Amino acid sequence: MGSDLPVLLAAMSILSALHMGFQARLVGWSRMKHKILPPSVTGPAEFERTFRTHQNGVELYPIFLVVLWTSGIFCNEVLAALVGLLYIVGREMYFTGYINETKKRLPGFYLVLCAILILCRMASVGIIQSFLDKYHDIKLF
Amino acid sequence: MGSDLPVLLAAMSILSALHMGFQARLVGWSRMKHKILPPSVTGPAEFERTFRTHQNGVELYPIFLVVLWTSGIFCNEVLAALVGLLYIVGREMYFTGYINETKKRLPGFYLVLCAILILCRMASVGIIQSFLDKYHDIKLF
Amino acid sequence: MGSDLPVLLAAMSILSALHMGFQARLVGWSRMKHKILPPSVTGPAEFERTFRTHQNGVELYPIFLVVLWTSGIFCNEVLAALVGLLYIVGREMYFTGYINETKKRLPGFYLVLCAILILCRMASVGIIQSFLDKYHDIKLF
Repeated sequence: MGSDLPVLLAAMSILSALHMGFQARLVGWSRMKHKILPPSVTGPAEFERTFRTHQNGVELYPIFLVVLWTSGIFCNEVLAALVGLLYIVGREMYFTGYINETKKRLPGFYLVLCAILILCRMASVGIIQSFLDKYHDIKLF
Repeated sequence: MGSDLPVLLAAMSILSALHMGFQARLVGWSRMKHKILPPSVTGPAEFERTFRTHQNGVELYPIFLVVLWTSGIFCNEVLAALVGLLYIVGREMYFTGYINETKKRLPGFYLVLCAILILCRMASVGIIQSFLDKYHDIKLF
Repeated sequence: MGSDLPVLLAAMSILSALHMGFQARLVGWSRMKHKILPPSVTGPAEFERTFRTHQNGVELYPIFLVVLWTSGIFCNEVLAALVGLLYIVGREMYFTGYINETKKRLPGFYLVLCAILILCRMASVGIIQSFLDKYHDIKLF
C-alpha cells in the first residue's frame, strides 16, 4: 500500500458515508414508529421532517465529496479532512435540530454551508494554481 | 495509460452508473404507462413503488461509490469489484421485487446491505492500516 | 503539487458542484416566493417544477461524476472536460426551461443525455483497452 495515498480523505469519506447510512436508518425507524409503509413518504409532521432532512443530506453529499477530495488533493489534505469533520458535525446538528422543529435546523445548516464554502475556496485556489503550473508553466507561490 | 490504474473499480463504477441510468429509464416508462406527467410524482401504487425504488438507489449510490473505491484502493481491488457486482445484482433484485410488491424488495435489500457492509469493513481495515503505516510508522501485518 | 494531476476534471467537478449549489439556492428562493415552508415539497406548479428539476439534477449528478472521471482518466482528459462543460450547459438549459414549462425541459434534457452518453462511450472504450492491457497483455492500438 503506497503511503502517499490520501488516507485522511478516505477516512473522512467512510465516516461521512457511515453517518449517511445511520441517518437513513433513522428514517426507517421513524417509518416504523409512525407506521408509514413504503413507498409512502407523507405522514405526521415529525416523519416528514425526518424524511426531508435525510433527503437534504442526500442532495448535498456528492457536492461534499467533490469539494472534500479536490481541496484535499489540490490544496491541503489535513485541513480538508478537518473541515470535512466539521461538515459531519454540522450534518448531525442539522438532523437532530430539524427532527424537533423546522427552525432548529438552521445552526447545523450554517455550519454545513460554512464547511462547504471553505472546502470550495480551498479547492478553487488549489486547482487554479495547479492549472497555471501545468498548462502555462507559471508558479504563483 | 498507466496499467496500474484501478480498472476493475472503474469498470464496476460505469456498470453501476449504466444500471442507475436504466432504472431512471424504467421510471420514465412507468410515467408514460400510467400517464403521469412531470413534475408530479404521485399516482397509482405501482408507479409510486417504481419511483421510490429508483429514489432509494439514488440515495445509496454515492455511499456505494465511496465504499467501493476506498475498499478497492486501500484493501483489495479484485475483491471490492466482485462485491460491487453483488451490489448491482442486489440493486436489480430490489428494483424488480419492489415494483411488484413492497414486501418483495427485502431479499434485494439484504443483498445490497450485505455488499455495502462488506465493502465498508474492507475499507475501514485498509484505511486504518494505511493510516498507521503513514502517520505512525507502524505496520500491523 | 504534482503537475500530472487531472486538474481539468477537478475544475469541471468544482464548477458542476457550484452549479448544483446554485440550483439548490434557486429552490430555496422559490420556497420563499411561494411561502412554502420546509419540509413541505408540494405547492403551486411553478414551485413543484423548480423542486423537481433540482431533484433530477441530484439523481444524475453522481452518474455524471463517474463518467466524467473514468472517461477523463482512461480515455482523454481534455475531451472529457469539454463534454463535461456541455453537460453543465445542458443542465442549466434544462433548469431554466423546466421552470417555465414542463415541455421546455426537453432541449436541455437531450443535451445532458448526449453529454452523458459521449462520456460513457469514452469511458467504456478506455476501460476495456486498459483492462486488456493490464490483465491480458493485449494492446489494441
